[in-house]
Amino acid sequence: MAGSSRRAGGRRLQLPLLCLLLQGATAILFAVFVRYNHETDAALWHWGNHSNPDNEFYFRYPSFQDVHTMIFVGFGFLMAFLQRYGFSSVGFTFLLAAFALQWSTLVQGFLHTFHGGHIHIGVESMINADFCAGAVLISFGAILGKTGPAQLLLMALLEVVLFGLNEFVLLSLLGVKDAGGSMTIHTFGAYFGLVLSRVLYRPQLEKSKHRQSSVYHSDLFAMIGTIFLWIFWPSFNSAPTPLGDGQHRTALNTYYSLTASTLSTFALSALVGRDGRLDMNAALAGGVVVGTSAEMMLTPFGALAAGFLAGTVSTLGFKFFTPILESKFKIQDTCGVHNLHGMPGVLGALLGVLVAGLATHDSYGEGLESVFPLIAEGQRSSTSQALHQLFGLFVTLIFASVGGGLGGLLLRLPFLDSPPDSQCYEDQIYWEVPEEHADLAQGSLRPEEPDTQA
Amino acid sequence: MAGSSRRAGGRRLQLPLLCLLLQGATAILFAVFVRYNHETDAALWHWGNHSNPDNEFYFRYPSFQDVHTMIFVGFGFLMAFLQRYGFSSVGFTFLLAAFALQWSTLVQGFLHTFHGGHIHIGVESMINADFCAGAVLISFGAILGKTGPAQLLLMALLEVVLFGLNEFVLLSLLGVKDAGGSMTIHTFGAYFGLVLSRVLYRPQLEKSKHRQSSVYHSDLFAMIGTIFLWIFWPSFNSAPTPLGDGQHRTALNTYYSLTASTLSTFALSALVGRDGRLDMNAALAGGVVVGTSAEMMLTPFGALAAGFLAGTVSTLGFKFFTPILESKFKIQDTCGVHNLHGMPGVLGALLGVLVAGLATHDSYGEGLESVFPLIAEGQRSSTSQALHQLFGLFVTLIFASVGGGLGGLLLRLPFLDSPPDSQCYEDQIYWEVPEEHADLAQGSLRPEEPDTQA
Amino acid sequence: MAGSSRRAGGRRLQLPLLCLLLQGATAILFAVFVRYNHETDAALWHWGNHSNPDNEFYFRYPSFQDVHTMIFVGFGFLMAFLQRYGFSSVGFTFLLAAFALQWSTLVQGFLHTFHGGHIHIGVESMINADFCAGAVLISFGAILGKTGPAQLLLMALLEVVLFGLNEFVLLSLLGVKDAGGSMTIHTFGAYFGLVLSRVLYRPQLEKSKHRQSSVYHSDLFAMIGTIFLWIFWPSFNSAPTPLGDGQHRTALNTYYSLTASTLSTFALSALVGRDGRLDMNAALAGGVVVGTSAEMMLTPFGALAAGFLAGTVSTLGFKFFTPILESKFKIQDTCGVHNLHGMPGVLGALLGVLVAGLATHDSYGEGLESVFPLIAEGQRSSTSQALHQLFGLFVTLIFASVGGGLGGLLLRLPFLDSPPDSQCYEDQIYWEVPEEHADLAQGSLRPEEPDTQA
Repeated sequence: MAGSSRRAGGRRLQLPLLCLLLQGATAILFAVFVRYNHETDAALWHWGNHSNPDNEFYFRYPSFQDVHTMIFVGFGFLMAFLQRYGFSSVGFTFLLAAFALQWSTLVQGFLHTFHGGHIHIGVESMINADFCAGAVLISFGAILGKTGPAQLLLMALLEVVLFGLNEFVLLSLLGVKDAGGSMTIHTFGAYFGLVLSRVLYRPQLEKSKHRQSSVYHSDLFAMIGTIFLWIFWPSFNSAPTPLGDGQHRTALNTYYSLTASTLSTFALSALVGRDGRLDMNAALAGGVVVGTSAEMMLTPFGALAAGFLAGTVSTLGFKFFTPILESKFKIQDTCGVHNLHGMPGVLGALLGVLVAGLATHDSYGEGLESVFPLIAEGQRSSTSQALHQLFGLFVTLIFASVGGGLGGLLLRLPFLDSPPDSQCYEDQIYWEVPEEHADLAQGSLRPEEPDTQA
Repeated sequence: MAGSSRRAGGRRLQLPLLCLLLQGATAILFAVFVRYNHETDAALWHWGNHSNPDNEFYFRYPSFQDVHTMIFVGFGFLMAFLQRYGFSSVGFTFLLAAFALQWSTLVQGFLHTFHGGHIHIGVESMINADFCAGAVLISFGAILGKTGPAQLLLMALLEVVLFGLNEFVLLSLLGVKDAGGSMTIHTFGAYFGLVLSRVLYRPQLEKSKHRQSSVYHSDLFAMIGTIFLWIFWPSFNSAPTPLGDGQHRTALNTYYSLTASTLSTFALSALVGRDGRLDMNAALAGGVVVGTSAEMMLTPFGALAAGFLAGTVSTLGFKFFTPILESKFKIQDTCGVHNLHGMPGVLGALLGVLVAGLATHDSYGEGLESVFPLIAEGQRSSTSQALHQLFGLFVTLIFASVGGGLGGLLLRLPFLDSPPDSQCYEDQIYWEVPEEHADLAQGSLRPEEPDTQA
Repeated sequence: MAGSSRRAGGRRLQLPLLCLLLQGATAILFAVFVRYNHETDAALWHWGNHSNPDNEFYFRYPSFQDVHTMIFVGFGFLMAFLQRYGFSSVGFTFLLAAFALQWSTLVQGFLHTFHGGHIHIGVESMINADFCAGAVLISFGAILGKTGPAQLLLMALLEVVLFGLNEFVLLSLLGVKDAGGSMTIHTFGAYFGLVLSRVLYRPQLEKSKHRQSSVYHSDLFAMIGTIFLWIFWPSFNSAPTPLGDGQHRTALNTYYSLTASTLSTFALSALVGRDGRLDMNAALAGGVVVGTSAEMMLTPFGALAAGFLAGTVSTLGFKFFTPILESKFKIQDTCGVHNLHGMPGVLGALLGVLVAGLATHDSYGEGLESVFPLIAEGQRSSTSQALHQLFGLFVTLIFASVGGGLGGLLLRLPFLDSPPDSQCYEDQIYWEVPEEHADLAQGSLRPEEPDTQA
């Protein structure tokens, strides 16, 4: 750790000042602009003579809590697979998401619920803020271990704004459907992070290669993340959809898609793995791939087929594409977000194009109004909706790529604290690491008096 | 690992081909037979002029998610106690359950919701499929570490069918009540697995004895499984019961039963343990034992008494019966499912006989219709219901034993990949195990340059 | 372990007899006094001609399950940071909370829902029992590692009664509002435990100093606890509030407060930590500090400000106050409950005084009736309510301090089994610890044939 004192000195000021500055700014903006909406304000709710059981809280809060679990437990532990970066994976997830929730409440609020000079918030804005945090964490996955926390906060500062703009263009201007965010969350978050990782390319990263792998228990911690994401994904996709059959159908489609991506992940990973060895990383792709279409009349078979395809593509990506990504494209994608979010996200967007294009009054009945209001009202044909969906994917890729590029330039600002190539994937520069583990770093696991044994 | 290459070669094809075959078959059957029900289909729901808050989703989905957590996190990590089998415990749970959810949707669908040539699915079928997966995982617990994933999938293929048939005989033909599945899930799953384990008896299993124990952190991972099962068991038992007081009472009874089984588990394990040492494995028995009766008017005291009894019996079983099970009956029950699901399941069935036999119009009032419709409609006396319940237990034991025997014969098919006696409880033959742990297997935990220290 | 046989002998009888005695007593009291309430009793519910969707179950059960997760997973794993005390942290949490749920059902029942000679229970009493268990676990945190399980059960026996009485005085006699328990749970639990820890002061505790730290993976297990507490805290504070806008607003305020305490925790811990190193322990303080005021019209900005302040105070407490607490006040606070629950709890009470004092008919409209019924009915002014709130804090501190003192005297009864100074923070005296870890205790992690390597 020689020479680390100046770096530590910079860090000592950089991160806390940035945290305080950002918190101060959001707090002031909250004071000026943010108000309870008519479901959370005592006076407004009771003035409206509402029946308490009708409060949106009872229809969305359980799903919100599942989403919240995914963001903090799921993403946090999914990224805890690195042997010496568990504290950072969980801890920076925590920091990034906590900031993103506040900042996104403001950005999304200005774009979606600003009226009378105020942003109005309730359980729906809480879900939307968590969704935005999800996109930020996906981008984090691409650069995991290679950036300091102050850099990450700046990334979130930029990404939340671009996420909000992209979402606004798609959902509000283009009338695109994307409840579970195949485009707005997964495609956007993945390509933002990948381009950013490209800009931050480190040719000497093999200096930290020995820390870039997992150990037995760190893999089990990562499985906690994987499983919590997997089980709650039906809630993720259905959290913001129209009430009634909409939420119900979305959850069901996601549930089946995930079972199929799990089977194809096991099948394909055994086929391509060394000696038939398994890898369950890609099992989550089934949740991503139906993010756009799960609220539509995808059919149960369609959900299985989509999940199967996503698990296949994602598994093959982990095996064959990730190495190329680094060697040919100079993109060092720590968590493989291209496989888990990028490709399945694009596939999901295209599946949305297909299913939207097949929508008919017959198959949706009166329910067409809530899934495709513009088609139901005669403003658009199904084909037109499909083309809008496709254009939405195109817009998302533009926003993500340009945004990731800008983000990379921002994070390369020379005064920003960034770990050296030899200290990537290492908790010790940010956290108090208990001694036993410090020993491990030096080649021994024996915590006390090692010499008395030898 | 000498000689493992041919085995690996077989595995490389066996598991993926089986996954693809099964997934292909269920996908085709889904395409032909499975449709959204009137709560998940856009046209059907809106045609019915329903009010969105009345959608079954809002009454069952939170409980479904708790059940889903139990199946994947609870069972998966509960079985992760073995020092070198954590990836397999969590991963095979994942694979088996994902397949069981699809396959059970079909089997249960044909038996319960098949009309107009189609199976109709929604949140209730999702809960029922998860329940069936639970039974499969209980059986998995009995043979944990001694079977390959292809064998496990074949077991699930058979067990799901027999589970569905047994459940159909009990619930639909005999009019037996068993909401939380003391019989249909726990007794069935346990004895299916135990008989199967008997057929697969390995006299040379001590070759893997050194791997059959836990290490400190693997026990903590197992505690994650235990606690998640424990906290969500009230949701498990109440997920499929009638709405209103039914779900409410079931959850409450289960909650108190579990507290009592926890106290008796601590008391009894301290009494019989070496030097008064504790073991909390049996604390879950309180959830199993009220699986049949929790929806009935068990009374809060009855819940405590039942839980206390179950914790006691289960703890004594772990201490005194498991050794006999292997030495006398040649049943190698890796996870002790006989103690945790078998005996408490049978006790729960008998408790159901008792409580059903005591049912009166006075104690249930108009609520008798939803708990015991056949009694309420005058088609049966309470005594007759009790006898039917008892017969249901008998039927379950037959189905489970014969099924487990058939399953055992199926899994012994000579061409099926099965780990050798010396490689049981070992992740390394199925998963990429990080190097540190591979070292551990050879007697050292030191990951780098161990010789430089000595 | 020489000389441990007599101690083990005492333990062998003390804990099981106490468990059996307590369980027997609560079971008898349940038989005599506890009945289903009108929402869980089949006859009463149907007699009332209720509509099933109106059952309280559907409005509170999802929140209850989140609270239940916090109590068992959150607190259990939060305390699992000690390197050799993970089994005890999780296991004793389990035992203590299971007993507290039963005992508190009785105590709270006699004080709150006793009519017609019976206690009536349902989901609200389940939530309240879990809340009481939370207070017991906070006290447990102050003495973690220094007491045996029989001592802990006796502590719970006393604390549950005093918790119930204090809660009754505050909520029923003084008309104080404290939905999320800044006073009744956090302040009470913390100061009860701190005073108790003072009475049990061990001047020779440094004999166990080497076991009082964490190891890498134990810290990750503790992060599981931290994150589960953090994500579900909005459910904790909102679980018992009035339906409708009340629950909704409480959850929302808690959500934002926690994001702010997270940012201030990262900022402050980096400022005061060695070389700018981070510590995320205090991030939970944001949930505690709005326990009283989150159901009030705190405003979103108020939530951010409160969370920020709590994270700051709590972080500074961990750094500067905990050492003084031991050196000056002879209080050995293992988990730092003074920082996480004590100070933020008092702050939360004071914040409640302030926000209650600012309540106006204008800001609450017709909703004033459900938040401050005594003000709405004209029986009290806002200022009077504020003074009552302040007096509630004073009462709580008295109850907690006197109770903690009595508890300390009780736990010092000479015949009670208590770990010696040299065996604190050690699982091995209560649990079967796998061999590998026993080896670790002796300075080696090598599980097999260590000598062949050297």
